[in-house]
Amino acid sequence: MPASSPYLNHPKEIGLVKEETFVSETPFKLTNGACLDRIELRYECYGKLNAQKDNAIYICHALTGDHHVAGIYHEADEKPGWWNHVVGPGKPIDTNRFFVLSSNCLGGCRGSTGPASENPNGNEASMGGNFPDLSISDMIHAQKALIDHFGICQLHAVIGGSMGGMQALQWIVEYPGFAKNAIIIAATAKHSVQTLAFNEAGRCSIRGDLAWEKGNYEKGAGPRKGLSVARMMAHITYLSDIGMEEKFGGDRRLDPTKEFEFSVQGYLDYQGKKFVDRFDANSYLKLTEALDRFNLVGENGLEDAVSQVNTRTLVIAFSSDWLYTPKQNKDIVDALLKAGKNASYLEISHSHGHDSFLIDSGPFLGSLASFLQTDDSVKDQSNEVDGFRKIRNRYDVKKEVDFRAIDDWVLAKDKILDLGCGRGLLLEHLRETKDVQGLGVDWKLRNAISCVSRKVPVYQEEILTALSKCNNNSYDWVIFSRMVETLPEPGCIIKEALRVGRKVAISFVNYGYWRNRWNFLLKGCRIRNEVYPHEWESNHLSNHFSIHEFEEFCKRLQASGIKLKLGRKLFYRGDWVRKCDFLPNLRAGLAIYEIISTED
Amino acid sequence: MPASSPYLNHPKEIGLVKEETFVSETPFKLTNGACLDRIELRYECYGKLNAQKDNAIYICHALTGDHHVAGIYHEADEKPGWWNHVVGPGKPIDTNRFFVLSSNCLGGCRGSTGPASENPNGNEASMGGNFPDLSISDMIHAQKALIDHFGICQLHAVIGGSMGGMQALQWIVEYPGFAKNAIIIAATAKHSVQTLAFNEAGRCSIRGDLAWEKGNYEKGAGPRKGLSVARMMAHITYLSDIGMEEKFGGDRRLDPTKEFEFSVQGYLDYQGKKFVDRFDANSYLKLTEALDRFNLVGENGLEDAVSQVNTRTLVIAFSSDWLYTPKQNKDIVDALLKAGKNASYLEISHSHGHDSFLIDSGPFLGSLASFLQTDDSVKDQSNEVDGFRKIRNRYDVKKEVDFRAIDDWVLAKDKILDLGCGRGLLLEHLRETKDVQGLGVDWKLRNAISCVSRKVPVYQEEILTALSKCNNNSYDWVIFSRMVETLPEPGCIIKEALRVGRKVAISFVNYGYWRNRWNFLLKGCRIRNEVYPHEWESNHLSNHFSIHEFEEFCKRLQASGIKLKLGRKLFYRGDWVRKCDFLPNLRAGLAIYEIISTED
Repeated sequence: MPASSPYLNHPKEIGLVKEETFVSETPFKLTNGACLDRIELRYECYGKLNAQKDNAIYICHALTGDHHVAGIYHEADEKPGWWNHVVGPGKPIDTNRFFVLSSNCLGGCRGSTGPASENPNGNEASMGGNFPDLSISDMIHAQKALIDHFGICQLHAVIGGSMGGMQALQWIVEYPGFAKNAIIIAATAKHSVQTLAFNEAGRCSIRGDLAWEKGNYEKGAGPRKGLSVARMMAHITYLSDIGMEEKFGGDRRLDPTKEFEFSVQGYLDYQGKKFVDRFDANSYLKLTEALDRFNLVGENGLEDAVSQVNTRTLVIAFSSDWLYTPKQNKDIVDALLKAGKNASYLEISHSHGHDSFLIDSGPFLGSLASFLQTDDSVKDQSNEVDGFRKIRNRYDVKKEVDFRAIDDWVLAKDKILDLGCGRGLLLEHLRETKDVQGLGVDWKLRNAISCVSRKVPVYQEEILTALSKCNNNSYDWVIFSRMVETLPEPGCIIKEALRVGRKVAISFVNYGYWRNRWNFLLKGCRIRNEVYPHEWESNHLSNHFSIHEFEEFCKRLQASGIKLKLGRKLFYRGDWVRKCDFLPNLRAGLAIYEIISTED
Repeated sequence: MPASSPYLNHPKEIGLVKEETFVSETPFKLTNGACLDRIELRYECYGKLNAQKDNAIYICHALTGDHHVAGIYHEADEKPGWWNHVVGPGKPIDTNRFFVLSSNCLGGCRGSTGPASENPNGNEASMGGNFPDLSISDMIHAQKALIDHFGICQLHAVIGGSMGGMQALQWIVEYPGFAKNAIIIAATAKHSVQTLAFNEAGRCSIRGDLAWEKGNYEKGAGPRKGLSVARMMAHITYLSDIGMEEKFGGDRRLDPTKEFEFSVQGYLDYQGKKFVDRFDANSYLKLTEALDRFNLVGENGLEDAVSQVNTRTLVIAFSSDWLYTPKQNKDIVDALLKAGKNASYLEISHSHGHDSFLIDSGPFLGSLASFLQTDDSVKDQSNEVDGFRKIRNRYDVKKEVDFRAIDDWVLAKDKILDLGCGRGLLLEHLRETKDVQGLGVDWKLRNAISCVSRKVPVYQEEILTALSKCNNNSYDWVIFSRMVETLPEPGCIIKEALRVGRKVAISFVNYGYWRNRWNFLLKGCRIRNEVYPHEWESNHLSNHFSIHEFEEFCKRLQASGIKLKLGRKLFYRGDWVRKCDFLPNLRAGLAIYEIISTED
């Protein structure tokens, strides 16, 4: 008697699931002009579609994945769906709240219409090598037919990693507003030349195998050697150098008289053979070609391609992913932000390379959960999301005197860029009170996730890099809230901020404050207090400045031809409570400036 | 009539060269126990071997390279040897000074004994698949036989990139002192698992081709498809993502009706086919296996493997090389340094990936030239090496008051680690006057090359990373010459320095100097002078400190259990000339401390 699966009858597991088949007898026109008489899609769904039919999440799978996202097929099944740790009751994609749907993609070989399935145009033999060329767009058209079949008029979210991420991106571009939210994971708007090259080498391996026979091989036969090599090679690109070292570095060389001299050889051989048993070579050719041709950048640029997008979007990249790199993922967010869309970017440190999105890791699950669980309906739920505490106390906002000042200055609906936004408290406050359109920038993942959980769009990046990507005058306000002193060569960064924002708000601790001077005169060292808490040896580097130095700098900027004027100024005494308008360079502890760009 | 080659009759070109063949009829025993009755090596040599036979440089080629390093074979030859820009009269490897020798490696297919050459054991057919397994060690044994044949008892240098770099490494390990100098470029002491995996996929492609016939194919036949795919894949690993984008990104998609849809496809196809025409599949199998098995790290570690090395060594890595990464190259230097050897590391920013070592780039050529041209015999030659000026003026040293103090403190033959060594002036001076064994650390390539040109061993790296790799008490002195103020959390770094050095010398500008205090009291901002030259907005980040703060920190270190005592102290007034022993925290502009580690 087989042992019962741990995935059965567990309160956080979906348990038994089953495959369904959707058939559309309507002729299905493909991007390249060809037409399929009918299509079938193999799919699975979990959770309940609510009466309003507005709680559906569509999950798009990767190149060699399928529709079996979560759950098990029978009691003794030990291998649940590929995203079982992500999808389930109480999991980040919570089947208690959401109706989750996924189908094997068109052109695939796991039950949906593809080169190996029975000829949809009527003949009994498969189309094999004669199956038409596919595009990512064709795949989502087929998914749309399935979603229509359920009578769903709007998706709560479309989510996918790798090829699935590219589909999710195509979804928000091609059906503006159809998905309220999107999570695009480890994806790209177009393949790098390196990726094209790897795919081409893989296809050459398949086509170079005599058993390929131009794709018209018998069922069960085909280019096994060629496909296996293609898979081995591709598999390397899904992992990272470090990840492989961790896995096979310790016991790297086996007994040289054995079949495999190195442990990684045996692993690759196993991966190759296993893959050949479950995947069709023609599908592999058609799908990788569809990926290679996917190019939303095109001649007009990605910003143009996403101009109609009306979906709140989160893009997640992994630090060690060298197939669809952080840069490629950022390019998607850059375009969305330039086009004025609600988009966030998170970069997760993970050693597993591209395949990190398949791994059970806290920060990744936390990111997904934070993004999906911020509906007003769940606002009062647990304020702990995978270790990232949501601090919603208004006192956090009120105590920040510079926050209050900026709150006074900002007008309703302003566009605001908050550089060094931390946990996003200021933007959350401004969003709720003034309905501003805000973007936070912070390089710490923990802070960025906290922003996402507050519905604050956030770009996890260095400040100067983020600024350099913004269009001229694209924000009403650029805000530096007590962080200029941590920037090297701050002059360049403030100049950039004046290019990007119509107004710049800068709050800083006045280093010229009399207590600092007095202390320095007596002891020759800086004062120690809550603002400067560390001994010399534990300090990070900094570049403190005084009100006088700041004003002199602004004059030099003007003299150098930068058109600006100083607007409102606020000075607070050492307690940061009482205002201070007389001799502020000597008497003020905190200063807040408004700089107005008067460039045309 | 063909146009004459630009490489002919040009004063900086070698011009016409020809191949030679060396035959050894002595039985040649291989590492794996097998024996070849005789071996042949195809080679080329340039320049003149001098009477003392001490000016020979041996160049080891990469996996698919050969002995045709420089020059042309006939007047109309438009393709000179693969390192023609490096080797020639007046070039970095100067054939006016050096006798340059290179041979096709054992197991290769360009004229030396290998699987495709006539059976060295007497039969007429080639050994093909029966050719014995090779090692990198076997290859250099064959090279040694050739060098012996010339009557050369010591090489001036052995130099190689990629597989050639691994051979150069094996040379200095296996024949201690035989090469006076070595340049190891873009190499590794063992393959990463990722590289093993790529090679294995390539070999699977070759062996999976039916035409391979276990290696016993006819001459001119063989696994053309399989070898071509292996080459395509390997070729991708020789380039970088950015480099490929630069080359094929602009015009990436061609007319889809053409033979190749993407320009990179055509390129790879061409590379694959060209390679199959010039390379033997069995050679490719044997050589990649030799590379995969090469492992100087082994069970005892690389430090043990290099313990007998007696060669001045330079290791050069390229920033975008993801095949033999900067880290892998650094590992070689780390081991050499830990074993107390004379070794330097340079990392060159270049977008061409692993193949950067084949590209004509200024900093790379400058590095080679700087390392090779520092013999006393050439000391008075041009002091401009590829834009890097050698400043040899003694005034440079004398004006540095802290240099002078440290010069007083250091004893003859001391081991010295100079953190933030700049151009290496201090170490050069100490080497020449006290015969110290020094290592400089600086993260700037320009500075590091300058050190190399001064015969100062240098490690181009961040200070904390470099320190963390040093053994306990491995230096007599660790020196921070006016750079502690640029370090974040300097306490940790000084603690590390006390672990690594028996004594630490720290010189710093005293921030507590009375002029700073006075200025700050009056204006609330730092003084501007030659020490603090920048306006606030152009400052880099820093962490200035006073004599008082430094001594307080040392007390806290002692209180925390670190065993140290303060040794000699020197204070100079604001002019950095006159000494100042009374009220130094107020009156001194510059302080120099000796800290003695009293840890057992």
